[in-house]
Amino acid sequence: MNENQENTNEEFTPLSELGEFGLIDKLTQDFPLRNASSIKGVGDDAAVIEMLDKQTVVTTDMLVEGVHFDLTYVPPQHLGYKAVVVNLSDIYAMNGRPTQITVSLAVSNRFSAEFIEKIYEGIRAACNIYEVDLVGGDTTSSYSGLIISITAIGQVDEKDIVYRKGAKATDLLVVSGDLGGAYMGLQLLEREKSVYEADRNMQPNLEGYEYVLQRQLKPEARKDVPEILAALEVKPTSMIDVSDGLSSEILHLCRQSGVGMRLHEDKIPIDPSVYKLCEEFNLTTTTVALSGGEDYELLFTIDLQDYEKIKGNPNFTVIGHVVDKEEGANLFTRDDQAIRLTAQGWDAMLRADE
Amino acid sequence: MNENQENTNEEFTPLSELGEFGLIDKLTQDFPLRNASSIKGVGDDAAVIEMLDKQTVVTTDMLVEGVHFDLTYVPPQHLGYKAVVVNLSDIYAMNGRPTQITVSLAVSNRFSAEFIEKIYEGIRAACNIYEVDLVGGDTTSSYSGLIISITAIGQVDEKDIVYRKGAKATDLLVVSGDLGGAYMGLQLLEREKSVYEADRNMQPNLEGYEYVLQRQLKPEARKDVPEILAALEVKPTSMIDVSDGLSSEILHLCRQSGVGMRLHEDKIPIDPSVYKLCEEFNLTTTTVALSGGEDYELLFTIDLQDYEKIKGNPNFTVIGHVVDKEEGANLFTRDDQAIRLTAQGWDAMLRADE
Repeated sequence: MNENQENTNEEFTPLSELGEFGLIDKLTQDFPLRNASSIKGVGDDAAVIEMLDKQTVVTTDMLVEGVHFDLTYVPPQHLGYKAVVVNLSDIYAMNGRPTQITVSLAVSNRFSAEFIEKIYEGIRAACNIYEVDLVGGDTTSSYSGLIISITAIGQVDEKDIVYRKGAKATDLLVVSGDLGGAYMGLQLLEREKSVYEADRNMQPNLEGYEYVLQRQLKPEARKDVPEILAALEVKPTSMIDVSDGLSSEILHLCRQSGVGMRLHEDKIPIDPSVYKLCEEFNLTTTTVALSGGEDYELLFTIDLQDYEKIKGNPNFTVIGHVVDKEEGANLFTRDDQAIRLTAQGWDAMLRADE
Repeated sequence: MNENQENTNEEFTPLSELGEFGLIDKLTQDFPLRNASSIKGVGDDAAVIEMLDKQTVVTTDMLVEGVHFDLTYVPPQHLGYKAVVVNLSDIYAMNGRPTQITVSLAVSNRFSAEFIEKIYEGIRAACNIYEVDLVGGDTTSSYSGLIISITAIGQVDEKDIVYRKGAKATDLLVVSGDLGGAYMGLQLLEREKSVYEADRNMQPNLEGYEYVLQRQLKPEARKDVPEILAALEVKPTSMIDVSDGLSSEILHLCRQSGVGMRLHEDKIPIDPSVYKLCEEFNLTTTTVALSGGEDYELLFTIDLQDYEKIKGNPNFTVIGHVVDKEEGANLFTRDDQAIRLTAQGWDAMLRADE
């Protein structure tokens, strides 16, 4: 467990010593503007962005300490990184390219300036890797805990935008990567936290679990997927990112496209380490994939005619297909039983399993 | 004092009863898109905005309960309204026109669904009056209190953008409206709160103080100023909104424009009710105008040649002029003493007065 959440740091500068402006200046230095569309970044009443012939996509997400993250095991750099990534994922889910972010941070005085700087290190790392510019934000105090609110802005050609609506019967349902890892990473961290809290001399044993831990603590957004699809000349008919769990996302696509879907249990891509951990935790991988969430993979539908283009591509798995609305959204189990997907129902099942 | 902050409402629906999606759906209904640039609002992974030949301006502000507002005397509708207005003010300060907002809200379970809906009523009222579209957001739980983070997006022709930089020696320093009202409204509310807390049967007497209360609780952004300036064919050389106090804003303009300024105490516009209250509270109006903040007026510099165009305009007051950097930023008192402006210094003076 890391103990770096508060004033237990080796270095400790109280936030009050810097003042609001001193802190903002310090935090936002070393954020070069790399996108031509970023005309003016931090330092005026507002940032100025030039989108020209592109359309602008905008999304926002708020992460709250104790609700979305636990600083007992989340290092501040990873928190900053993840806070950016979850927003960028929404831009990719529109088939867009993220270009700018604004970051608002509320912190209580139990955090040191050094701790906040580490969060910004993570934000900076994400900006570098995803080539987005930090162009604005706000830093303020809170009476308890840490809250990060990020808005991401991206651009996309009008003809390339992919909404949640647009799926039609006979389309194929496709997902990138694999599912359930982030949720199992969380289970593992929670278990090790309990062990640690029972005996502070116990250091957690997390060896061999690198994959699920990375999926939970430092997830990546699928920047590559819109690029790969463009190269394959495939434009999805609908798309969403997997933040709440496969079941919930399928229901979103169904509702907004006015269709039903068949999901095949035996097709859901699961990493071997997730299988292993599910056994340990007495969970089923299907439940975890359906309701775990935070995978930040992209879930999309494609026209049946595009099947040959993505067939065998290691980035994608066809997990089902689109049917008429009347049929609803159903999971077809390994023994060919149809089970109606309900975000709530699967959530309840997951809890019963725990 | 109003008691409507928590579960003391006549109607009370626990947030948990609605669930996240139910609540978001409920809150974001009745938000019609009125700007042609709003292609897609709430309901997909991201909003889609089309700026075409305009430049996009983006700003974000976070309001934290206990830090930026006190629910003992701030009605939820006003809170929602003000949270939008403070962001729009930053867009007008770029000489832009706001077109979209996203709203993120973190709430603890001490708030009812009805209370959150009242906040959204205020947000809706601001959207109507300022003709902006709510296009996205996030609603999440918090462990304590209420946090609102809003991002405002606007548009402006490239040739019309006004930055904080651009002021030059001999320019005139101009402010819209009058200053210090919001701060005195806060003093009044804090006083009445103390009275109420000492004796719960005492109802506050706020009659005759409508102006300063409105300035604090339901401020307006100066939507009209960019329009008036355009009609007068005046383009400011620099501009900022007065959120932290006149002194701090003057220092921002000086720093970013590389100039000094002379501010004349006898020119600072003060409402008669602010004079009266300052006497009651034993504060000087100049101190309150310089350091009070939250006035959301626009402070700008214009070329000396434009003086005739704004002379006598009831919306504007010339309060000083721009000088060389070497001279620094100084207040010239009524008896012609020069006092160096420092955000910190005046802040300290204000506290000493209290």
